[in-house]
Amino acid sequence: MTEKPLILVTNDDSIIAGGIAALVEAMKELGDVLVVAPDSPQSGTGHAITIHHPLRLRKSNEFSNIEAYTCSGTPVDCVKLAIYEILKKRPTLLVSGINHGSNAGTNVLYSGTMSAAVEGAIEGIPAIGFSLLDHSAEADFTASAVYAKKIAQLVLDNGIQNGTCLNVNIPKGKESDIKGIKICRQGRAFWEDTFDKRKDPFGGEYFWLTGEFRETDKGEDTDMWALEHNYVSVVPTQFDMTAHHLISNLNLWDFK
Amino acid sequence: MTEKPLILVTNDDSIIAGGIAALVEAMKELGDVLVVAPDSPQSGTGHAITIHHPLRLRKSNEFSNIEAYTCSGTPVDCVKLAIYEILKKRPTLLVSGINHGSNAGTNVLYSGTMSAAVEGAIEGIPAIGFSLLDHSAEADFTASAVYAKKIAQLVLDNGIQNGTCLNVNIPKGKESDIKGIKICRQGRAFWEDTFDKRKDPFGGEYFWLTGEFRETDKGEDTDMWALEHNYVSVVPTQFDMTAHHLISNLNLWDFK
Repeated sequence: MTEKPLILVTNDDSIIAGGIAALVEAMKELGDVLVVAPDSPQSGTGHAITIHHPLRLRKSNEFSNIEAYTCSGTPVDCVKLAIYEILKKRPTLLVSGINHGSNAGTNVLYSGTMSAAVEGAIEGIPAIGFSLLDHSAEADFTASAVYAKKIAQLVLDNGIQNGTCLNVNIPKGKESDIKGIKICRQGRAFWEDTFDKRKDPFGGEYFWLTGEFRETDKGEDTDMWALEHNYVSVVPTQFDMTAHHLISNLNLWDFK
Repeated sequence: MTEKPLILVTNDDSIIAGGIAALVEAMKELGDVLVVAPDSPQSGTGHAITIHHPLRLRKSNEFSNIEAYTCSGTPVDCVKLAIYEILKKRPTLLVSGINHGSNAGTNVLYSGTMSAAVEGAIEGIPAIGFSLLDHSAEADFTASAVYAKKIAQLVLDNGIQNGTCLNVNIPKGKESDIKGIKICRQGRAFWEDTFDKRKDPFGGEYFWLTGEFRETDKGEDTDMWALEHNYVSVVPTQFDMTAHHLISNLNLWDFK
């Protein structure tokens, strides 16, 4: 008899989001689940950690028969607290999400959901971030939960190379609408930002960050292409940000 | 007569930090300087953007004869506000820092200073993050400012490949102690975290995130090796986080 895998679940939309509830349900069928998730929405917090404020950690009854905690910090804080304070060891698998909204292309850098998975990779834990291409609080996670379970099982069976994790994005729609899974590279894109300038009741100016996601990549091997064509995209993701191909070129510069 | 380059300066230690003052002084000699920096310390905010709160932007007189603004958000917010709200165009060069403390190795992911540079790369702006290996508020930036000016000039002269930026770390000490510049890859390391558990005056438990930086990389081509041997490290850094070498392997998995 083999021991059940210990699966750490986190996200960035907070512990009460529909996406994490769907992910917990899917993971319960694969192993023992521990949830450590933010107590408030942390979208767009990227790889932030909390060092200028103390962190709070509280027991939660959000999921019946599942050990769960809320944390006042970011998704990366949640991963660190889970490993170093709650478990005092590394879990078998770390899953993050299911995010309400896409983390394809350059969004991986801004995403709290994916940064939790990247933190798992830094810690040497097989890790996966899942995102559904639907921002709404009432998004239907039925199909994405099926894919989350399938891909998590594959990672438990095959492992992932140390130092890497998976960025999985799932198109909106019914399971029968999804054409399958494609292994992709991260598409190139940027946010063309617009600041919505307003006045507060006291006459002070403030801004809301808004923007349009601009794809600058015409490749058919990107996650953005796969999603537009109704495939689930899987991007192997690493935390080595070195542009290795530039090292020889930079060595030609005159640094004297 | 050629136009002077427009240099955007930001950081994560806030507009009143010694490191940004040294960087502004160095950049003044190379072009026209605009400063947009956080109004409070933002260390460890990574690539976070502010979407759940409005942003404030205020004119600052911190630097004489230099146009400067403070922003209530993160370093990446500062870059976005500078480009899309203040300038309405892209600057010639973006420099971030000089950070009080190392951003070598895996620290690049947690660093607000480096995330501002990475945001520049996403926007197609030549960008450099500078960090001095001295956390103290009273750190001496004399030598690091010399290297910042030298490397910024080289980037103005040579450009950087689109989609990349430079992560420059400078050892502590006098200029004469520094052996030169090495082009490196990002070293592998992780933070072995410890949570300092305390009680607030009302009996509630809270945690401070602390930790030890553990190097797991014995390579002599890493930034961590270069810094230990008193070289300035320059790592070409990209925002494509795809683990390209794993794509063919993942295509062998049974995703049916």
